[in-house]
Amino acid sequence: MTDLVCGIDLGGTKLLGLAIDPTADEPVLAHKVPTPSGTDAVVDAMVALGQQLIDEAVDAGHRVVGLGLGAPGLVDRSGTLRYGPNVPGLIDVRFADVLGDRLGVPVVVDNDATCAAWAEHERGAAKGANHSVTVTLGTGIGAGITVKGEILRGANGFAGELGHMVVDPHGPKCPCGRRGCWERFASGSGLGRLAREAVAADPGAPSRMVELAGGDPEGVRGEHVTVAAADGDEQALEVIGQFAWWVALGVANVVNILDSEVVVIGGGLAEAGDLLLDPIRAAYDELVMGGAHRELVPIVQAELGERAGAWGAALLAHARA
Amino acid sequence: MTDLVCGIDLGGTKLLGLAIDPTADEPVLAHKVPTPSGTDAVVDAMVALGQQLIDEAVDAGHRVVGLGLGAPGLVDRSGTLRYGPNVPGLIDVRFADVLGDRLGVPVVVDNDATCAAWAEHERGAAKGANHSVTVTLGTGIGAGITVKGEILRGANGFAGELGHMVVDPHGPKCPCGRRGCWERFASGSGLGRLAREAVAADPGAPSRMVELAGGDPEGVRGEHVTVAAADGDEQALEVIGQFAWWVALGVANVVNILDSEVVVIGGGLAEAGDLLLDPIRAAYDELVMGGAHRELVPIVQAELGERAGAWGAALLAHARA
Repeated sequence: MTDLVCGIDLGGTKLLGLAIDPTADEPVLAHKVPTPSGTDAVVDAMVALGQQLIDEAVDAGHRVVGLGLGAPGLVDRSGTLRYGPNVPGLIDVRFADVLGDRLGVPVVVDNDATCAAWAEHERGAAKGANHSVTVTLGTGIGAGITVKGEILRGANGFAGELGHMVVDPHGPKCPCGRRGCWERFASGSGLGRLAREAVAADPGAPSRMVELAGGDPEGVRGEHVTVAAADGDEQALEVIGQFAWWVALGVANVVNILDSEVVVIGGGLAEAGDLLLDPIRAAYDELVMGGAHRELVPIVQAELGERAGAWGAALLAHARA
Repeated sequence: MTDLVCGIDLGGTKLLGLAIDPTADEPVLAHKVPTPSGTDAVVDAMVALGQQLIDEAVDAGHRVVGLGLGAPGLVDRSGTLRYGPNVPGLIDVRFADVLGDRLGVPVVVDNDATCAAWAEHERGAAKGANHSVTVTLGTGIGAGITVKGEILRGANGFAGELGHMVVDPHGPKCPCGRRGCWERFASGSGLGRLAREAVAADPGAPSRMVELAGGDPEGVRGEHVTVAAADGDEQALEVIGQFAWWVALGVANVVNILDSEVVVIGGGLAEAGDLLLDPIRAAYDELVMGGAHRELVPIVQAELGERAGAWGAALLAHARA
């Protein structure tokens, strides 16, 4: 009998659940279900997923000693999501209490990107680094920070919201209410916007990105850029270059503030690998303060993929079990 | 006989030296001398100032057990200034060793704003706060951060360089080589620039700020704005409002990242008090992520004035003595 912990990553479109042996390199169980709509339905789906993991663990002769939940937004120290523009119906639900009561195990809740950063720190690309930043580039930007080998939570548990660092007050409007948040440039949606602008600037020209978008210039999204760039398409590579500059700008700002020793890039866009990371590294060197006078900060690809959030949530639950 | 520690703040124009009893609320000795030019002259002046403080302390029946130095720029953990655009001749001098050998006391060196932040944390406006940010608004911007009641130094000792966070890539050129660093907007030089722009936008109109600058529109500087604004001058108050917005933008970015519980504003500009702090507070509320859903972060005036840097350097020397 092994003591397992479960982790659930609450995403806008899917719930990913893992059961892990905290000492092992691979999860024991993994399940993915769509995220339903409506507060009660989401809570029920999380309970069902957690129960399934617990039941299967018990059937296999193990015991589940805790569950961690990663949620997208500002999670306070009571385990309540206080602000989460991507999951509006779930605000002010006391997840830790609600899930804990229904599942009969201790539940901890933290920001999803904080969970992912913790997993990369414990098991992935930031292993061994005391001062790390993990940035997940998906539809938006999530991030988690470690300082002296521990998660930086701040006064209320809200630290690490890099995506809403304003980097251009004249930039595009952000759903959060301000203009020019880093997320507007350096996320998947930012990449799509840069690509559509490039296409619009040269409307007559043939474009591989538009082709991949089914011929609709307005339909070009981030993934069309990375696919076209991987094929060597020049227009797409130029867009990747611009995009990488924006990523590097925010990374340099953060390293100026935190003096991190490694920056991990995760999320869907990180799957582009060095195609994206190389131009980020080149731009970063120009953008960090006193670059010639300080140690080079490695900018590396995340290692745990889409499982990072759930894995980190489980590891956090284990640490507090 | 009391064990005293000395602190020296190395500024671009002056050296400020203190001898303190670490348990007392006021320094025992304080001296200020101009900063000479040339590497050797600056080192000699620091040694002379340190020796004067030590001699006077000994004459008064005390003992000096250490000396702290606050230096403007990136100070590494060996006590060497690695990058400091304001004191170019002093780069790569191993201050800790050089001063320690000549003065015969252990010497610690840290970034000047880090020292000031530590003093505010230990004796001033951030007392009792585990997670604090102290920003000094002078000719440039300095900053120091505490996390869990300790200074955030980062991997190399370089953390806290908020002034070179890029907040507008289309903004004015910065001596550091990039464009639109926060320091270009939210420092004394930024305030002067905003004022000169306001004057240039309305060239015929009478202007109290220009009057204070001796009639030269190109000569308007930060202090003319704060004086005119204190007199109730409308144009100056408008400039203060713009300036406060830029200060708040950077403060909000930093709170998004660190989730601090208090933000201390120091440096020469902080002497304007609520005239400046009130519009900063108002703009901050609009600019921080999820403002309506999180605890209000007090933005307060620094308490230790120009002595903060030397005081904090001495406190750091005491902690390591």
